[in-house]
Amino acid sequence: MRATVLEGPRDVRVEDVPDPVLPGPEGVIVRVERTAICGSDLHLYHDAPTGVGIRLGHEVIGTVAEAGPHVRSVGVGDRVLVSGVVGCGVCVPCRAGQPNVCLADKSAAFGTMPDLPGGQAEAMAVPFADVFALPIPEGVADDEAVLLTDILPTGYLGALRASIRPGATVVVVGLGPVGVMALQCAALFGPARILAVDMVPERLARAEALGAEPIDARSAPGSVQVLEATGGRGADSVIEAVGADATVLDALACVATGGTVSIVGVNLSMELPFPMGLVFLKSLTVRTVFAPVPGTWPALVPLVQSGRLDLAGTFTHRMGLSQAAEAYELFDSRADGVLKVLLDPKL
Amino acid sequence: MRATVLEGPRDVRVEDVPDPVLPGPEGVIVRVERTAICGSDLHLYHDAPTGVGIRLGHEVIGTVAEAGPHVRSVGVGDRVLVSGVVGCGVCVPCRAGQPNVCLADKSAAFGTMPDLPGGQAEAMAVPFADVFALPIPEGVADDEAVLLTDILPTGYLGALRASIRPGATVVVVGLGPVGVMALQCAALFGPARILAVDMVPERLARAEALGAEPIDARSAPGSVQVLEATGGRGADSVIEAVGADATVLDALACVATGGTVSIVGVNLSMELPFPMGLVFLKSLTVRTVFAPVPGTWPALVPLVQSGRLDLAGTFTHRMGLSQAAEAYELFDSRADGVLKVLLDPKL
Amino acid sequence: MRATVLEGPRDVRVEDVPDPVLPGPEGVIVRVERTAICGSDLHLYHDAPTGVGIRLGHEVIGTVAEAGPHVRSVGVGDRVLVSGVVGCGVCVPCRAGQPNVCLADKSAAFGTMPDLPGGQAEAMAVPFADVFALPIPEGVADDEAVLLTDILPTGYLGALRASIRPGATVVVVGLGPVGVMALQCAALFGPARILAVDMVPERLARAEALGAEPIDARSAPGSVQVLEATGGRGADSVIEAVGADATVLDALACVATGGTVSIVGVNLSMELPFPMGLVFLKSLTVRTVFAPVPGTWPALVPLVQSGRLDLAGTFTHRMGLSQAAEAYELFDSRADGVLKVLLDPKL
Amino acid sequence: MRATVLEGPRDVRVEDVPDPVLPGPEGVIVRVERTAICGSDLHLYHDAPTGVGIRLGHEVIGTVAEAGPHVRSVGVGDRVLVSGVVGCGVCVPCRAGQPNVCLADKSAAFGTMPDLPGGQAEAMAVPFADVFALPIPEGVADDEAVLLTDILPTGYLGALRASIRPGATVVVVGLGPVGVMALQCAALFGPARILAVDMVPERLARAEALGAEPIDARSAPGSVQVLEATGGRGADSVIEAVGADATVLDALACVATGGTVSIVGVNLSMELPFPMGLVFLKSLTVRTVFAPVPGTWPALVPLVQSGRLDLAGTFTHRMGLSQAAEAYELFDSRADGVLKVLLDPKL
Repeated sequence: MRATVLEGPRDVRVEDVPDPVLPGPEGVIVRVERTAICGSDLHLYHDAPTGVGIRLGHEVIGTVAEAGPHVRSVGVGDRVLVSGVVGCGVCVPCRAGQPNVCLADKSAAFGTMPDLPGGQAEAMAVPFADVFALPIPEGVADDEAVLLTDILPTGYLGALRASIRPGATVVVVGLGPVGVMALQCAALFGPARILAVDMVPERLARAEALGAEPIDARSAPGSVQVLEATGGRGADSVIEAVGADATVLDALACVATGGTVSIVGVNLSMELPFPMGLVFLKSLTVRTVFAPVPGTWPALVPLVQSGRLDLAGTFTHRMGLSQAAEAYELFDSRADGVLKVLLDPKL
Repeated sequence: MRATVLEGPRDVRVEDVPDPVLPGPEGVIVRVERTAICGSDLHLYHDAPTGVGIRLGHEVIGTVAEAGPHVRSVGVGDRVLVSGVVGCGVCVPCRAGQPNVCLADKSAAFGTMPDLPGGQAEAMAVPFADVFALPIPEGVADDEAVLLTDILPTGYLGALRASIRPGATVVVVGLGPVGVMALQCAALFGPARILAVDMVPERLARAEALGAEPIDARSAPGSVQVLEATGGRGADSVIEAVGADATVLDALACVATGGTVSIVGVNLSMELPFPMGLVFLKSLTVRTVFAPVPGTWPALVPLVQSGRLDLAGTFTHRMGLSQAAEAYELFDSRADGVLKVLLDPKL
Repeated sequence: MRATVLEGPRDVRVEDVPDPVLPGPEGVIVRVERTAICGSDLHLYHDAPTGVGIRLGHEVIGTVAEAGPHVRSVGVGDRVLVSGVVGCGVCVPCRAGQPNVCLADKSAAFGTMPDLPGGQAEAMAVPFADVFALPIPEGVADDEAVLLTDILPTGYLGALRASIRPGATVVVVGLGPVGVMALQCAALFGPARILAVDMVPERLARAEALGAEPIDARSAPGSVQVLEATGGRGADSVIEAVGADATVLDALACVATGGTVSIVGVNLSMELPFPMGLVFLKSLTVRTVFAPVPGTWPALVPLVQSGRLDLAGTFTHRMGLSQAAEAYELFDSRADGVLKVLLDPKL
Repeated sequence: MRATVLEGPRDVRVEDVPDPVLPGPEGVIVRVERTAICGSDLHLYHDAPTGVGIRLGHEVIGTVAEAGPHVRSVGVGDRVLVSGVVGCGVCVPCRAGQPNVCLADKSAAFGTMPDLPGGQAEAMAVPFADVFALPIPEGVADDEAVLLTDILPTGYLGALRASIRPGATVVVVGLGPVGVMALQCAALFGPARILAVDMVPERLARAEALGAEPIDARSAPGSVQVLEATGGRGADSVIEAVGADATVLDALACVATGGTVSIVGVNLSMELPFPMGLVFLKSLTVRTVFAPVPGTWPALVPLVQSGRLDLAGTFTHRMGLSQAAEAYELFDSRADGVLKVLLDPKL
């Protein structure tokens, strides 16, 4: 079958690879129907040495083509969405939908290591399908189902872990796909104000349309403008959805005393120059988020079904799997008008 | 001055009474500008024996006419809103804005006992004004300020104590003024669905306009329809905002296993026939709410300021204080078109 | 094989019954080594009509004699403890260890209905063993393992749902086996004082030895003495572990304003005369507990292993399965010196 | 009167200074009876340039010598303990006992700035005594009262903010006075194990006597030994009570995936080399603590009264105020046998 393979820095190719095989009696093979490119894929894309040869992709929906004999909750022919993150599948946290804290230390995203091939492909093997796959629920559109595999859960956890109280002022730093999800999920916790920081006019306009107050960080640092907009107090909760050192530091600079900074953006620095003195004087809580995807479905599925989240327009581009190289380049450009790219393995 | 006095069952009169005097050096005298009739006033109105001679009313905004020497945060001439519930003013919970759990056992609403005269009058004495009065914040309209004195905090606590999780299904039983506040506040906690139960078409229409699914309890018991609408599971959280035995029992009947029933309606029965067996088998949490008014202001004021709560239209009738008898009769009728009545002491 | 069967009111017999068969490919057969009689068994024992023919018992440890092909976490020969409560085994709450809120509505205790035969027998069928059975962990003695099947989780949940804050005053009403577990678990939440109410001197002495202040309800109602001991305020959290109407009402009478009553005792009344007026004026939270047994193991197993809970002495009597009739009679007597009875199926 | 004044690096002198004057009508003058030296005093002691001329000390008990006319809850002659941290005294958080998040940005400890003279003196001015002073409660010994002014609340908050679940494994890094308080407070949250890390044998012995498992960081880094002791998983909650960069990093290294690091030690670095990649992959929560002293009293006072906290032996040395220079030198030595020093202003 055809699959996207990383061959070097910024070098993604669609290649012929062996078909996936059933990953144990609890697993299934999914014939992929839609798959998206995620901001976290770009980490490998930019820094290929560690990832050469990997089949990319962890946002997948499709149809079950083969099911192991122990699988109970999905069957051949079922259309499913797949958790982008998996674990051992057996430990208590995995069974409870939180593979991010898998006790067997097997927490991982598809498409980030050789033995867990990704889903930007015609088919994908999914272990422990009772836990890591979900029949696409009635009332959930395909685009929405793709968002439920990773970035909506991630944005939701980012908001949940920001400890947003009713009436609070919230800042979302970075309005890429995950930031937009976080912004919408922040609204679920009853804030009075959401300030949305970015440098791309179109992204700021989208945030404003979603009810946020846009802050254009091209004119002055986001933190300075947030302090100004809050009478010097800062925001009660800040969600950082970029992952750069500068934005993490900006988030710490604009959170109010006693507040929380929830870091959703992937930052893998081992020596970020951290202002502990500031964090101490402000009695802060700082959190990171690696999403327990299936554990968020009981909350998120009904929200999607009832239309409380406005997810339309998240996918700005739809391309064929064969155009994967082009799609990566486009997505990586963060050009105006580009928010998220969906791939169709049939094309 | 003139004040509303309860003279007997369903017999409210406007009488000349002595002017209020400063209730200690921490208190103030407020010249009342707007005051509302509350559903809980009707308990006294219907059952006068215990309340004859009482000056009614606990929803008041006005201007400080006189301030005790120890008062710091408000001064003569300031326009303020007044907490409908007060306590000793000195204990830790009172200072923290929670007079409902006053350690000196002095928790009480204005206008419910002889030594705490109410505010349906030209003026009212407010003890410990630093704690129990709040300068009307910029961006808060007068009608909204009145709602912040009691029923919005009560509705908010009703929603808060219903333990609503994101994605949950919530039921609000009773769409009177407090029910409408509870419905709006329930939305602050991210539910996927809010089902709103009442028997008055206009109230159901208002709930629907606010985003809820209306359930008309004239055709079948609310609980039966809620179970139907939830595939037999029931609702995760139920807010009871009537206070009748029947509606409390209906709330218990339609909550899902593991769920919470938050009772906002005033029910003073000492022998309600409680289905403990059902409550046990469903592992329920049952809560009542007596609102810690000032403690809710830090959350509610910014929500009102930012327009996240749609409070317009709560007051359906505006009358003069001199029409108090008529106003009580009208409010008590629950007639179509009547939601809440505002009184102007100048008229 | 031999099993305890309920034949009529207070008529328990050991009879020959068919051997259990594997309850599906995810289940196991456990050869029972120790099994206890629970206070909730007495409900059936007293009120036999609904339970005639039922094989009793839901507190079981033993060795896996046969395992279905899909079982992963336990194997033939493993010594296991079994959750007294099971559910469908497949839904998200079941998988997360909370069969008490099973979405398929299959929550039930072993030995309470014909199609879920109990474990006061030589062997028992356990469905979905990955979820409902646990290999007896190193450092957990057999007696402790039996307690982990039901009453320790129940007491723990009773304490957890009592919302005990550090420094709080807690009351435990009823010092039977579950009450003693609740008392110990209450101490896990940092209370300053635990008041323990009962009428049996020996039970009061045991509570005192565990650090509680004994209150003998023979001299005056527990609530009166609790109010006296707390300067009239009452207790912040009350755990009711009897289940009688009178003790539920006493619990409500002695809880402080703003407090929580957690009802662990089984009370199946459908018309308990509930003092809603009191509950309203005190802004209470009232909760019942039907224990999500497996969900408590991650917390309780390490506590048992580290010796933080003093469980020795819980079993005051050890008898053979053949003496079941006698054992029930003894346990039902609540005689001095009788706390809990353990049965050995080999004898 | 006499007071301790910082004159330069490691240069503390007892000098004649003007008597304190009433800090407004809500304040009191306290004649100091006991005052302690705190680890945070050493920050100024070591780094004098910023603090020359400051009167040190923020742990004080004494008798009210003069009371402003607005003070209600304490009077002349009352023996009181004083919150080490104060704020504006008027805003909602201050009134609720949380001056650490004072909305007027006036949060500060006594004895750290010129206009808030410290209490290592014969007398001290205390603003807003209703909020920041507490009559020494019955059953609280003088030594215990001193601990309630700062380090017990700080240790308590450190434990509270470590999100300790029942059954958890907790690490306390650093067994100085605050670490010992944190260790005892950690036990209030029901952990199964507490591992205590230090390099001083006597401190390790004290921790062991309090029920913790000692880890001697002289032989190998604490984190290495914690990982070993937990089968490689790490601890669920880590309380850092040193404040050095190395110990903060060690705390991050030994916390388990999904865990919490609560940093009580004062670390004022603005460029601590923070392992964000690790923090991200482990989905951590990192918190600092600046104690809301009065807000902890309702929990801590009953715990002290009931003897649940073992505070005896915290003060290893008692000296006269006149020996302040010697006392600082001794305390700074962290010599074996030195845990905390109490000063008597009469001597």
